Amino acid sequence: MTVLITSITPKGASSIFFKSGLLNARAVPTTVRLRPLVVGYHKLPLSSVRQFSVTSNQSLPREFFPENETEKVRRTPAAWPHPIYTEEQMRAVVIAHRDAKTWSDKVALIAVRVMRWGLDLATGYKHHQPMTAYQYLRRNVFLESVAGVPGMVAGMLRHLHSMRRMKRDNGWIETLLEESYNERMHLLVFLKMMEPGLFMRLMVLGAQGVMCNAMFLAYLLSPRTVHRFVGYLEEEAVITYTRQIQDLEVGRLPEWEKLQAPQIAVDYWKMPVGKRTMRDLLLYIRADESKHRETNHTLGNLDQKEDPNPYVSEYKDDKPHPSKDLAFQKPTGWERSEVI
Amino acid sequence: MTVLITSITPKGASSIFFKSGLLNARAVPTTVRLRPLVVGYHKLPLSSVRQFSVTSNQSLPREFFPENETEKVRRTPAAWPHPIYTEEQMRAVVIAHRDAKTWSDKVALIAVRVMRWGLDLATGYKHHQPMTAYQYLRRNVFLESVAGVPGMVAGMLRHLHSMRRMKRDNGWIETLLEESYNERMHLLVFLKMMEPGLFMRLMVLGAQGVMCNAMFLAYLLSPRTVHRFVGYLEEEAVITYTRQIQDLEVGRLPEWEKLQAPQIAVDYWKMPVGKRTMRDLLLYIRADESKHRETNHTLGNLDQKEDPNPYVSEYKDDKPHPSKDLAFQKPTGWERSEVI
Ligand SMILES: [Fe+2]
Ligand SMILES: [Fe+2]
Ligand SMILES: [Fe+2]
Ligand SMILES: [Fe+2]
Repeated sequence: MTVLITSITPKGASSIFFKSGLLNARAVPTTVRLRPLVVGYHKLPLSSVRQFSVTSNQSLPREFFPENETEKVRRTPAAWPHPIYTEEQMRAVVIAHRDAKTWSDKVALIAVRVMRWGLDLATGYKHHQPMTAYQYLRRNVFLESVAGVPGMVAGMLRHLHSMRRMKRDNGWIETLLEESYNERMHLLVFLKMMEPGLFMRLMVLGAQGVMCNAMFLAYLLSPRTVHRFVGYLEEEAVITYTRQIQDLEVGRLPEWEKLQAPQIAVDYWKMPVGKRTMRDLLLYIRADESKHRETNHTLGNLDQKEDPNPYVSEYKDDKPHPSKDLAFQKPTGWERSEVI
Repeated sequence: MTVLITSITPKGASSIFFKSGLLNARAVPTTVRLRPLVVGYHKLPLSSVRQFSVTSNQSLPREFFPENETEKVRRTPAAWPHPIYTEEQMRAVVIAHRDAKTWSDKVALIAVRVMRWGLDLATGYKHHQPMTAYQYLRRNVFLESVAGVPGMVAGMLRHLHSMRRMKRDNGWIETLLEESYNERMHLLVFLKMMEPGLFMRLMVLGAQGVMCNAMFLAYLLSPRTVHRFVGYLEEEAVITYTRQIQDLEVGRLPEWEKLQAPQIAVDYWKMPVGKRTMRDLLLYIRADESKHRETNHTLGNLDQKEDPNPYVSEYKDDKPHPSKDLAFQKPTGWERSEVI
């Protein structure tokens, strides 16, 4: 009889779905794959599981999703090439909060607070308790799997709207789709460091379903509120990654200290030689989140139907303007009067 | 009292929705805009309406959606820069049909035939009857407003699938989204040449709703069938545009003979000076459709989950490979063995 271990938590590997007749082979193709990883960890104490959970990708028995080289194809480059960030620019990223001024802002802020409270409750996250590397990874995977939803839904709705109402879109779609692509890359990178169990997969499935529908309805009702909502969400993301970077730098995450960034990350961010550690990776990801924070706060300040997207526009003057890289950082977004 | 003329057809301008209390100002913001165009045409005979319908954008009283220049923003360039096509390459585009080999192919082909039959019935299109420039424009606007749906829905579903199942996408999303962008550009270009009435807008609204849902379900059930379906749809598109080019060249569409391509088209396709007529425009659009035909037939030949997208991959050998431009045309798609 095959033992199907489906979920690994800091308290030990669990087998709550073990032998369930409900599981079909296609939904859980991980029997064979998980076995070399988890046999022997079942009900083992925290320490040994933690040791698994932070295994670097080099020592995993098999790559979770290997680079897809075929007989003829060498590689498939990134859809949206990532802009170059310097370390100095990434170090300049700060935690920030934009005041909720309008009712729309307040609704967005409350939505983020409620979601964050629910998630903390569900994952047992406490802001003043130390987190292990495994706990951070698990949280990151879950959040990144949801983070790619709003940009894609908003981009799709604006595309359909443009065709239906026969109006130009003024360049917004592209930035929203690129954002969702960037978030998906974050997810793929973290997945190189941990392989989620069935429980996590079910959580992700449910969260994606809820998020898709919520974003779909919300963006139809008030695109401005959704952009503000994402802005606030990304404020939280910057806080979370800042905390991970700090914990790593003061030595609270020994498992990450020698960890190298996976190849997919090196390629995507074009990480320079000698700057390819887990710490560097977290700096890149935090900088991306700060960029989404700025972008969405800026879009939330604009006329949703008429204004051009400031991130892809050409300007008449030579002053600093919104850009895709970190050249000019405005954590709380650009005001409409500065860009239109 | 304001006369709201809502729909202009070859048989005269009609005012069936005239004074309807159901119309709110926001849904129909065209009262003022339409007035200079249509006052005086109400119930006029075919010939004078036809004359309106083919008015070049230069002589329209006001641009339908002007280039969005603001105080600070000069312009907003295209999201996906268009590859360069030479006239020789565009002339080499041919009508083609890929045999339906599998059951999936046959389902796709039947779906296209049924849709085409329904559309012809609804619009009174007969294959052997001459079409006027106005009839072609109306048909093009309708079809292009629907053509942007499948790529966007497929791209979104693959994006969500990648995050949900925690797998790479292997580069498919980007090509699908770019396709939907290109179709939307076709629509915007034709909208520079005619302003659709309320009846057309309602048709587009309904068609988009049906198409979105149908594509959503179909892509979840069988992505391969959807790619084949789009391949067959684009076979039809190449036929339609070929017919328009031929009619124009033999003098059956005098209204288009001196018509210049609108600026949005010149910018998007980077049309060279002296090659910016309506005829050139149709050559570009037909070439785009032939590219979608090839792309979707190719994607329909691949393993939907594992194979990299041949259009964005780097190859190990130097033989001809799928590309975004017209360098190597394969009207019925590349076979899997040629590219993977
Ligand atoms: Fe992220
Ligand atoms: Fe984010
Ligand atoms: Fe098209
Ligand atoms: Fe098309």
